[in-house]
Amino acid sequence: MLIIGELINGMYKNVGEAIKNKDRKVIQDLAKRQKEAGANFLDVNTGPVADDPKEIMQWLVEAIQEVVDIGLCLDSTKPEVIEAGLKNVKNKAIINSTNADDERLNILVEMAIKYKTYLIALAMDKKGVPRNKQERLELALKIVSYCQDKGLRLDELFIDPVVLPVNVAQAQAKEVIETIREIELLSSPAPQTVVGLSNISQGAKKRDLINRIYLVMLQANGLKAAICDPLDKELMDAIITVDLLLNKNIYCDSFLDAYRKK
Amino acid sequence: MLIIGELINGMYKNVGEAIKNKDRKVIQDLAKRQKEAGANFLDVNTGPVADDPKEIMQWLVEAIQEVVDIGLCLDSTKPEVIEAGLKNVKNKAIINSTNADDERLNILVEMAIKYKTYLIALAMDKKGVPRNKQERLELALKIVSYCQDKGLRLDELFIDPVVLPVNVAQAQAKEVIETIREIELLSSPAPQTVVGLSNISQGAKKRDLINRIYLVMLQANGLKAAICDPLDKELMDAIITVDLLLNKNIYCDSFLDAYRKK
Repeated sequence: MLIIGELINGMYKNVGEAIKNKDRKVIQDLAKRQKEAGANFLDVNTGPVADDPKEIMQWLVEAIQEVVDIGLCLDSTKPEVIEAGLKNVKNKAIINSTNADDERLNILVEMAIKYKTYLIALAMDKKGVPRNKQERLELALKIVSYCQDKGLRLDELFIDPVVLPVNVAQAQAKEVIETIREIELLSSPAPQTVVGLSNISQGAKKRDLINRIYLVMLQANGLKAAICDPLDKELMDAIITVDLLLNKNIYCDSFLDAYRKK
Repeated sequence: MLIIGELINGMYKNVGEAIKNKDRKVIQDLAKRQKEAGANFLDVNTGPVADDPKEIMQWLVEAIQEVVDIGLCLDSTKPEVIEAGLKNVKNKAIINSTNADDERLNILVEMAIKYKTYLIALAMDKKGVPRNKQERLELALKIVSYCQDKGLRLDELFIDPVVLPVNVAQAQAKEVIETIREIELLSSPAPQTVVGLSNISQGAKKRDLINRIYLVMLQANGLKAAICDPLDKELMDAIITVDLLLNKNIYCDSFLDAYRKK
């Protein structure tokens, strides 16, 4: 499982304030702690900043790269903000995200090829969030075909089937699990899969429990990557244990410690 | 998910001693606590008793039924011990278990029909434990065909794909998950599925964690029943949360409490 740490996001109060005050230390501390906890990539999202988001993205990328050597997942609805970050990344990055709309696909697939990055693509389009597995797979297939045509390697594409809050769209949780399983069959090689995990528990009680159980269910059905909180120790224990049970980590009595920091 | 409480087993020291001393209170306390914690059935296993196991089985059944109204899962390698228990059960019982050997199938399928019980059948035979999904499915198919011929309803048959300890047979954990998923496709209606959960962590460290994560993975792939410890609160929380995410329990903020004792 690829862990994309979600904590550097201007939506969160501490990060929003750090951005406003240009306080590198808060950002750098979050970067170091997430990497130490096992994140393979760090998501970077400026949040709803009032002033120039391109400049903020560049400042965040610079601040993080001063203290950790890790891949970044540049997260914005604005392609130009993502591109501003890409100009300064040191490691192979992830673009987060395109969707299945032609115009957006066109811009972001080209950008992924130009900057040699991975690309996250949401299985949704202008019509909104899909209502079932079938609609998700149709959108995923459109994205896959587009990437094949343009020459983006499918193992560098991550389809995000769009997780919705269980308290308002309960039937969708299972549709997403089945989508993850069936995306494996879409093409050869299959695209990778990713979810924004914490969406599942938005507005719900027992958020950590719901996040953790849902991630195990998704992993047991083939999920390859998750944007999540690597500082949630129980979540990380669960991920390590799933990999053990899927025979990806070799068993030893101290498996939790052995696979925590590799 | 059907929960079959595993704690009344003579292998456990407290139960072994209670059997020796004919101490009904210990057995009755375990019966009440497991039912209160959410068990739908109680497994009853005399363990390796020196004197007459048939009499012990009857004593256990009687002791339990004095205090709780619940289905029993009569667990023995000896068909005559199971039958001794069946003569006194008040509710529809489970026979635990046959395997795929002709002789044993013959005796226990007949017994299940005669006493109108559910039947657990292990996907193994004289040759030993299967080494992969394919061998498990072949044995399951043999069992299914036999039950169809004899007239045992397939929704009253539980195939147990035989869980092995992850620390000695690590690759088998995933084979069992895939077997659970594919048993759905064996027949129409499909047989039910069950596992003896705690086998997965036999001899391992972090047993509760391994049990819990493995059960979530199995449930997410269609498992219908588990023989497990209903007093493990975190395990029960996980089971309730999976059912929520599979859209079987309707979401409410207090879902853990709401679905704990129904």
